[in-house]
Amino acid sequence: MFENNPVTKLLKIKYPIIQGGMAWVADAELAAAVSNGGGLGVIAAASMPPEALEKELLKIKRLTDKPFGLNIMLMSPTAGDALDLAAKYRVPVVTTGAGLPGKVLERLKPLGTTVMPVVASVSHAERIAKQGADAVIAEGTEAGGHIGEITTMNLVPQIADAVSIPVIAAGGIADGRGAAAAFALGAKGVQVGTRFVCADECTVHINYKEKIISSNDRATVVTGRSLGHPVRALKNKFTKQFERLESSGAPAAELEALGSGKLRLAVVEGDTEMGSLMAGQSAGLVNAVEPAAVIIESIISQMNNILSEMARL
Amino acid sequence: MFENNPVTKLLKIKYPIIQGGMAWVADAELAAAVSNGGGLGVIAAASMPPEALEKELLKIKRLTDKPFGLNIMLMSPTAGDALDLAAKYRVPVVTTGAGLPGKVLERLKPLGTTVMPVVASVSHAERIAKQGADAVIAEGTEAGGHIGEITTMNLVPQIADAVSIPVIAAGGIADGRGAAAAFALGAKGVQVGTRFVCADECTVHINYKEKIISSNDRATVVTGRSLGHPVRALKNKFTKQFERLESSGAPAAELEALGSGKLRLAVVEGDTEMGSLMAGQSAGLVNAVEPAAVIIESIISQMNNILSEMARL
Repeated sequence: MFENNPVTKLLKIKYPIIQGGMAWVADAELAAAVSNGGGLGVIAAASMPPEALEKELLKIKRLTDKPFGLNIMLMSPTAGDALDLAAKYRVPVVTTGAGLPGKVLERLKPLGTTVMPVVASVSHAERIAKQGADAVIAEGTEAGGHIGEITTMNLVPQIADAVSIPVIAAGGIADGRGAAAAFALGAKGVQVGTRFVCADECTVHINYKEKIISSNDRATVVTGRSLGHPVRALKNKFTKQFERLESSGAPAAELEALGSGKLRLAVVEGDTEMGSLMAGQSAGLVNAVEPAAVIIESIISQMNNILSEMARL
Repeated sequence: MFENNPVTKLLKIKYPIIQGGMAWVADAELAAAVSNGGGLGVIAAASMPPEALEKELLKIKRLTDKPFGLNIMLMSPTAGDALDLAAKYRVPVVTTGAGLPGKVLERLKPLGTTVMPVVASVSHAERIAKQGADAVIAEGTEAGGHIGEITTMNLVPQIADAVSIPVIAAGGIADGRGAAAAFALGAKGVQVGTRFVCADECTVHINYKEKIISSNDRATVVTGRSLGHPVRALKNKFTKQFERLESSGAPAAELEALGSGKLRLAVVEGDTEMGSLMAGQSAGLVNAVEPAAVIIESIISQMNNILSEMARL
């Protein structure tokens, strides 16, 4: 059904569903499961040492023969290494976060890599489109992790009006309703993060998954606004400590020290009290641990049902 | 086309479009224009003296023979007067904000009034549904004025799952794309605020309308989070002063004193620097001053186009 969809055509995948490049979460195992399920799996380079990232790239090539992606955090000290590896292994798709992807485009476009930056504002989307990006991932403030301030509902149509490359909606999309809404807003594809944290194949600690599953609509909080780096995560002891310190006007260095290592603590140790359980507001819509392929099929089939219902209006 | 829509049936209107009950903005003139255009116009009681509100109710009855609504701010000192007037004039529809509408339901349901509270969380929606509300307006954080923290994209489906009364989506909806997205998320109708501020028939100062029209996606800011009363408005000198004072840890009384009278200043005097230009993130999607009926028709026709396009997927 998506033969004429610009995102499936661009990425050579079956369904226009991209898995978010979540630091510490999005490894070869999860990405391969998403790609094998018909979406685009994405490995997060984050600040991984190059040897570790190289292992993940070799691993995903064993686990799938489908296209996959690599997310490069442009502000990371290892971004240059990740770029080298993307070139060396001819990674089919690169998504980028936190900055302007000029160098990435310059290096990878000649190799035929598809580059899709994540942006949180119209002006950023316009700039990366001019730089030659193939598509843009418009991420609303309801997403988990590092976020902007504009909601998916308002960001997607405004970016769709401003650029001619395909827009992929991200932030708050966990089911077929969100996906159908994204298409109505002008997106040609969706990026899903939080729901894939609860994929069977996702290697995060089970405590993290269970905390997402038991979340309601009000489970997340944004911290770090005063630092200029807002982050959305599930409320817990850690976010309360951070909030208290932040509202007391503590120096940035003290806040950063408190935040340091906390994502690893959640993902690896399963510490749901002092770990940073990054998750989007869609946590309230996630109700089960399921195989990635089942998640994808359920989003697509629910979306199809909604589209046919809406057509009857 | 909306003959079987639960919102048009409930409210006895042509299109499932409700105009937001915006304090100082939503008067009889705007509300009548929206009702005459096939939607549901709503007068905002806000903190209006009862004599002034009575005049507005008498006026709208002269200006339209269509159903209309009255928005009652439950925390306002004049809420009781507004409730008396709603009963006296048999106002067909009442929307409520900022609190639990138990008293309103008790008084008005026996009179046949339709009551639709505005809520910003699932638990609040569940409570008002149990209290006997006829429908619920689920308002996302992208809305203008007093807001919650959950985005429309995430609030609407979670409330639709939790209650069996019709859900009307609010927050971020300014065109047919937003309306179609709201329906995809499970809403049966939409509430539109910011775009109606720019209706021809809206009596706010032209400077306020022009400021909305020239806004981009990043034009709004939320202040008052530290007070527990977040408010979204267009960025200007006033919001910068408020932000500075708020982040300095000033006492609540001082912040409230700074905010006092600022909405009137924007609406009546057209002071775009020191007035509070309450507006949603959809300000970036509003590009013209048009008659309310034209706004409604354009939302409906764009939504219809999207639905037929999506059906072809």
